[in-house]
Amino acid sequence: MSRLRFRISMSLDGFTSGPHQSVDMPLGAGGMKLHEWVLPLRQWRVLHGLEGGVENESTAVLDEATANVGATIMGRNMFGGHPGPWSVSNPWTGWWGPNPPFHHPVFVLTHHRREPLTMEGGTTFTFVTDGPEAALNQAREAAGGKDITLAGGAQAARQYLRAGLVDEMLISLAPTLLGGGERLFEGVGDDLHGLQLVRTVAAADVTHLIYARR
Amino acid sequence: MSRLRFRISMSLDGFTSGPHQSVDMPLGAGGMKLHEWVLPLRQWRVLHGLEGGVENESTAVLDEATANVGATIMGRNMFGGHPGPWSVSNPWTGWWGPNPPFHHPVFVLTHHRREPLTMEGGTTFTFVTDGPEAALNQAREAAGGKDITLAGGAQAARQYLRAGLVDEMLISLAPTLLGGGERLFEGVGDDLHGLQLVRTVAAADVTHLIYARR
Repeated sequence: MSRLRFRISMSLDGFTSGPHQSVDMPLGAGGMKLHEWVLPLRQWRVLHGLEGGVENESTAVLDEATANVGATIMGRNMFGGHPGPWSVSNPWTGWWGPNPPFHHPVFVLTHHRREPLTMEGGTTFTFVTDGPEAALNQAREAAGGKDITLAGGAQAARQYLRAGLVDEMLISLAPTLLGGGERLFEGVGDDLHGLQLVRTVAAADVTHLIYARR
Repeated sequence: MSRLRFRISMSLDGFTSGPHQSVDMPLGAGGMKLHEWVLPLRQWRVLHGLEGGVENESTAVLDEATANVGATIMGRNMFGGHPGPWSVSNPWTGWWGPNPPFHHPVFVLTHHRREPLTMEGGTTFTFVTDGPEAALNQAREAAGGKDITLAGGAQAARQYLRAGLVDEMLISLAPTLLGGGERLFEGVGDDLHGLQLVRTVAAADVTHLIYARR
């Protein structure tokens, strides 16, 4: 069966985005510091249509995390746009431009109904209003036996973690502090809901912690 | 010159002790989960007068962290006893019994004056009331060229981190959540005050992150 896999970059003080998140500053103040390790990588550059880049210890980790994925789930906050009902006159279509880097079905958790969006390059956004389990079931069907990526943000991830629905979690721990912002592990409880540390990978400017069900 | 070295075990959600810390529960609820990796180690057992134990990837990390140390600094909360002025009728002498596992001078940050305590096995407790820098200066003198361990707790560590006085930091990241308690990195700011990740060691049930000035 498809596994639900989650990966996120986190600061040493536990923040997955900085303070003052907004449409103009989607990662919050200082939030880019969490992602500095990924920007030089060749595979990240290819994914975003750029040339060049390096390979290092993070390459295999990212290759693995992005292999065999047939669908993505994300929260409304990560998909973006102003909170509340969707604007009809000026519809928000995500942060990623006309050809988003998913190239498969994406399911967006929201409280507000909206028709599906078909983008270039094989990406579709389907808006799910009946909760995380319903979104997971739809994603499983769409993934056709492949795995499902839980893309975030923190609030959506917490819902799936608390429900014990996450099968694999990759925490890319950035060696910095943010001092404020959104914490991934807030109200998730005092255990990892069946996940155990199975592998640690030391890479340039990041430590990858891989958790899975054993 | 003596380096100030700090090591602490932290949960994946950033807690260095669990909720409801007290004299009866010095690590807080669930706090022992942070230290499960250290208990089977031979060197930890030897330090506490026990036989047996194993060696694994943590052994070299701990050997290094405890080598060449000539003095220790700790906060009042870590030394323990009820807050406020020291009891004369029933004096608190620490958590560690008559022969504490330090075997060198220990400087305790406190707001309340107290005469030094001489314990068995070479450990002395000196109570410093004029602040972290004064304690560091006294510890440097006492260490005789060797390094100084900043033993914690979190509050004392934060004071030294914020002041940029920590030269080396070992975070032993336990693969668990505590869901509450005391956070090490609360109010320390949005950078590591000159410390950079220099090494990651994957060990049984723990990931060691070593930070230093470069």
